[in-house]
Amino acid sequence: MDPADYPHFLEQLRHDREQGASALARACLRAAAFSARDAPASESGGLRRLLIKRAGELAGIRPTMAPIGNLLGRWQRALDEAPAENLAQFRARAAALAEALISESEQALEQAAAHACRVIGPGRRILTHSLSASVLACFRRLRARGVTAIASESRPLNEGRRLAEQLAGWSIPVSLITDAQLGLFAAEADLALIGADRVLADGSVVNKAGSYLLALAARDRGIPFYVCCEGFKAAPGLDAPLEEMAGSELGYPQRPGILPRNTYFDITPARLISAWFTERGGSDHWVLSPT
Amino acid sequence: MDPADYPHFLEQLRHDREQGASALARACLRAAAFSARDAPASESGGLRRLLIKRAGELAGIRPTMAPIGNLLGRWQRALDEAPAENLAQFRARAAALAEALISESEQALEQAAAHACRVIGPGRRILTHSLSASVLACFRRLRARGVTAIASESRPLNEGRRLAEQLAGWSIPVSLITDAQLGLFAAEADLALIGADRVLADGSVVNKAGSYLLALAARDRGIPFYVCCEGFKAAPGLDAPLEEMAGSELGYPQRPGILPRNTYFDITPARLISAWFTERGGSDHWVLSPT
Repeated sequence: MDPADYPHFLEQLRHDREQGASALARACLRAAAFSARDAPASESGGLRRLLIKRAGELAGIRPTMAPIGNLLGRWQRALDEAPAENLAQFRARAAALAEALISESEQALEQAAAHACRVIGPGRRILTHSLSASVLACFRRLRARGVTAIASESRPLNEGRRLAEQLAGWSIPVSLITDAQLGLFAAEADLALIGADRVLADGSVVNKAGSYLLALAARDRGIPFYVCCEGFKAAPGLDAPLEEMAGSELGYPQRPGILPRNTYFDITPARLISAWFTERGGSDHWVLSPT
Repeated sequence: MDPADYPHFLEQLRHDREQGASALARACLRAAAFSARDAPASESGGLRRLLIKRAGELAGIRPTMAPIGNLLGRWQRALDEAPAENLAQFRARAAALAEALISESEQALEQAAAHACRVIGPGRRILTHSLSASVLACFRRLRARGVTAIASESRPLNEGRRLAEQLAGWSIPVSLITDAQLGLFAAEADLALIGADRVLADGSVVNKAGSYLLALAARDRGIPFYVCCEGFKAAPGLDAPLEEMAGSELGYPQRPGILPRNTYFDITPARLISAWFTERGGSDHWVLSPT
């Protein structure tokens, strides 16, 4: 990364609508590691201050996505506590700390998926909404075990279609439905499975808008509703209102009197969730505190 | 109508994705009235047989939409029972019978809307899904009474956007949302209101896919869920599977391994419905038998 590119890179991350919370958090950590190696500094104290400042900027880009704040906060605290040393040593340490957090996040996600897959088992028909890295990790583990998928498109940007393409690439048969058909297809699925952008202290799950509808339908149809995510998704509560993006993403021409609304997330109450799977295992109640 | 055009007109009605059940039923009755006046016949007995056959064809074009079958069935029976008379008299009688049913359907819809509006009252924020003629009739009656609307787009063909345009034309402020946000916005509405394509004997409502999700969200958020429709929507049960249309309507390129599914309707169980409004009034239980 060209040091002068950091503001541009920050803006790219801020406007990224492709990656989920886990992946975007790791992209921020990669930006942090690049910064550690390349940011302009003449001595380690100045670099430490600059990196702590950048960690704060990165942590705040998507306030609903808990792992971004949690992982960048972890890096920020580690930098704050790192011993004084020369510039080259500090650069290497700061970069290594960010990369260790990337690995920790990846491992947590894989472990959470492994725990979920033990309960899901082979041959099941899994209904999911939006595109979650942990849900994809579950499907990758189950791809030779006869599972099938029903994926909702997840308007407005249709991440569900990208999930369906990945599943098709793994030869997992997948039905692609509109979000409006989630209730109908809950009757044809064995279980519902989603990831999370944020899990609140009581286990309520903030995830792509529509997740709450899926949870209601799963409850009404009598199928389990599972959440699979890393502990880095834990947060005490909401720090900010649920993110609302540009109404123009809905793709309609502007017209006086019509206000397009585009809130990205909704909150699924804990009472609608059958089990949470994290790197610590599966549980029918939420036990993790924010990291 | 050019008599030779009837097959073409029938196909147009069969593939109409613009009009709801009420409007399409009336369009079928208009086709019936045109047929009565213009269909080739040399004597009234032959015309009667031809019109009864055409009534059966029209009745079957959209098996989920009850008023089409009910109204064309009514016309068919009236033709069957009509007295023998000369060709010109029979043409006039058959056309008048169809036109009377159009008026009866329009009046029933307006009366149902009037009953619903008495309960809804002024100033309320109304959440609706898809595009229903009876819901539009309610908004038209309430347009000077300070109501506001939240309309879901209703994928795949986005009839909700057309509803929003009509409401904006009446200066009713309207928020246009993705179907996935129905759960989120149920928390901001005073009530949910939909029409119906078909009401089963127990009061369960067949309507555009997503209606069931809205009903679940309304129940969970503690707001009433109202259905407003004419008695011509009543049917003993489903005569056929819920209609599934071309997956290509979802707008995605074909890809091996991905099956787009496009079921137009879902069923909202009677237990989720707070009240039904028809031309006979409002009730917290469904009382109408098929007509």
